[in-house]
Amino acid sequence: MEHLEHPLDQLAKVAVQVGLGLREGQELVITAPIEAVPLARKITEQAYRAGSPLVTVLYDDDAGNLLRYQHAPEASFDKTQKWLFNGMADAFQDGAARLHIAGNDPSLLKGQNPESVARANRARSMSYKRVIDLITTHHINWTIVAFAQPAWARTVFPNDPQEVAVDKLWDAIFKASRLDTPDPVVAWAAHNQNLHNRVQYLNERRYQALHFKGPGTDLVVGLADDHQWAGGAVKAKNGLICNPNIPTEEVFTAPHKDRIEGYVRSTKPLSYQGSLLEDIQVRFEKGRIVEARARSGADVLNQVLQTDEGARSLGEVALVPHSSPISQSGLLFYNTLFDENAASHIALGQAYSQCFLGGNNLTSEELAARGACSSLIHIDWMIGSSEVDVDGISQSGQAEPLMHGGEWV
Amino acid sequence: MEHLEHPLDQLAKVAVQVGLGLREGQELVITAPIEAVPLARKITEQAYRAGSPLVTVLYDDDAGNLLRYQHAPEASFDKTQKWLFNGMADAFQDGAARLHIAGNDPSLLKGQNPESVARANRARSMSYKRVIDLITTHHINWTIVAFAQPAWARTVFPNDPQEVAVDKLWDAIFKASRLDTPDPVVAWAAHNQNLHNRVQYLNERRYQALHFKGPGTDLVVGLADDHQWAGGAVKAKNGLICNPNIPTEEVFTAPHKDRIEGYVRSTKPLSYQGSLLEDIQVRFEKGRIVEARARSGADVLNQVLQTDEGARSLGEVALVPHSSPISQSGLLFYNTLFDENAASHIALGQAYSQCFLGGNNLTSEELAARGACSSLIHIDWMIGSSEVDVDGISQSGQAEPLMHGGEWV
Repeated sequence: MEHLEHPLDQLAKVAVQVGLGLREGQELVITAPIEAVPLARKITEQAYRAGSPLVTVLYDDDAGNLLRYQHAPEASFDKTQKWLFNGMADAFQDGAARLHIAGNDPSLLKGQNPESVARANRARSMSYKRVIDLITTHHINWTIVAFAQPAWARTVFPNDPQEVAVDKLWDAIFKASRLDTPDPVVAWAAHNQNLHNRVQYLNERRYQALHFKGPGTDLVVGLADDHQWAGGAVKAKNGLICNPNIPTEEVFTAPHKDRIEGYVRSTKPLSYQGSLLEDIQVRFEKGRIVEARARSGADVLNQVLQTDEGARSLGEVALVPHSSPISQSGLLFYNTLFDENAASHIALGQAYSQCFLGGNNLTSEELAARGACSSLIHIDWMIGSSEVDVDGISQSGQAEPLMHGGEWV
Repeated sequence: MEHLEHPLDQLAKVAVQVGLGLREGQELVITAPIEAVPLARKITEQAYRAGSPLVTVLYDDDAGNLLRYQHAPEASFDKTQKWLFNGMADAFQDGAARLHIAGNDPSLLKGQNPESVARANRARSMSYKRVIDLITTHHINWTIVAFAQPAWARTVFPNDPQEVAVDKLWDAIFKASRLDTPDPVVAWAAHNQNLHNRVQYLNERRYQALHFKGPGTDLVVGLADDHQWAGGAVKAKNGLICNPNIPTEEVFTAPHKDRIEGYVRSTKPLSYQGSLLEDIQVRFEKGRIVEARARSGADVLNQVLQTDEGARSLGEVALVPHSSPISQSGLLFYNTLFDENAASHIALGQAYSQCFLGGNNLTSEELAARGACSSLIHIDWMIGSSEVDVDGISQSGQAEPLMHGGEWV
């Protein structure tokens, strides 16, 4: 680990200064896989140095979670730690910032009963809802960063010895997180400016829909009424500026849940809760998926679509150029934090209120009236590539080329 | 770790079957130092096999805690994770069992500002009170077991290389936890029977006081009205039989907080929150400590005594024969779970309601009227040795020899 000392320090600094924009006197709650102890400690130190009076780390242990699937009684899969999630929601309600370290084993639940996995995920989503609502409405500043734990690295680089795989994954994380620049904090400021310019352009155009065309794809995604594009740094309700994802390359907004028509094919595999969904193909009518198949993981996909009404519609559409550094790495990360930044994508399920004009102050009824999809899930999957074109459809019905061959026009 | 596989499995089995007496369908909350992952996983597996539907492990990281003392702003030390402790209290209120893995670094806070340490401990005690009340009134079944983490092992065996020290500490833990017997569960049943016989004898005698005599000690500890002796297995309010401490050798009861007279000297060092208190000498008048000194750690002792009114009186008196296996090991463990089972001892602070007839159903006012001490703290320290004699003083004022030269008469 010694050769990682310096970059881990840098990543911790970016996490606290750029990711969280932590305020002096603000408490912090970190969730992390247990393998990420070295990074969690460095972030803890940076947070205390930035004036946080209390940092709490809640560690999650993949191996312990797997024991549940192997040995727990059937009734287990409807149970959740509601007492813990309520406590976390209380902490965020009271103003604590939130940092999550991504890096769980993407293949952990491979081979487990998909029905048990789906039941456990659904139960968790329900009792975690207060937390998710506080995060997605930006009640507080929050961020996600990544840690290259061995099981994840082995999945990304299956042909390398473990140590080599871990080093390669770290290298990819550091590059994607802009740590390969002389001053990462400055590099992030420039990157945020680029994303904000793009957001401003799209907000001025006020498209009624986006049209995706490519192999297996001819999809019109109607945009929600009063939709707003977002991307890069966000001002949370507490006035603090945070970057919710480190890395991030996307600009995104909310589809209108009843105005999606056509068919679409995934362009990269989707790693979801330990399963790999490849070559997803779905058809939409009036905003709902009416046909769905996948070359692998079809059973998991069908479980997901049955979660609730909103799981069959879209809560997000995002544009990412094919030339993004993550796309150029050519890697499949088996982790949404990275893979969603490699290609344009859509997300089944819940919409973000920040994608609506004044959305963080609208009730869920008001959001739904504007076309916001509501669901226990939010699952991104990739539909962009160098072979996919995107047009913006103006309010008068004119098609304007936005992306050609995967690049901004 | 490979040579520890089998004994760790055995320890996990004793923890779940003897320590917790876990019921099928009962959730479990584990708190553990992060170094204890291997044992926490084994206990998790045993709990699922015993029919628990959900096991939650909350890991505590010494190194992260130390960063707070090194880098956090001054205001930090009055802050606590109240949201987390409230969540835990909710879990226990709703019936989850509780298991704690002991093994934190006893020297962690050596050299930190004692005032900051005291402030942080006081704040923690206050916001942890709901949890402690549910545990000490045996609302649910609970237990504590130990894990030999390196920093602890180095403190106990400072002259050995780390690997040797860890192996030696494991050996001591396994012996003290009765894993060196052919069937540890059977051995625990026999041990519990012995402790219960002793408890029954003492309850029949109904002494008004105990009289300790030895070098530097001439102390009369009046016993509380309606006091009850306890030791070994306990029936919790949920009907389950648990062994709160693995190991345990003591029988104990509640002093009367206003009826303690004389002076007493500690016979072993006390490891308290990272500090070592040696050669404690205090004098009691009418149940209150009126003079206190210590050869080392006097500043910490004085901070402790200022916690609240009850911190200057006693909440527990316990008898342990000098021939107990832990005493015979000759080791100082720097951990109360072990050291309190090496010698007779007293505890500053809070009394246990189980030490009163029908105590778990009495209000705190009713308990106080019978002489129960109330405090945010409960700190055991050792006053027994082969040179200390103990008499029981009958209701008529007669002295009956109970222990001579540290052994039961």
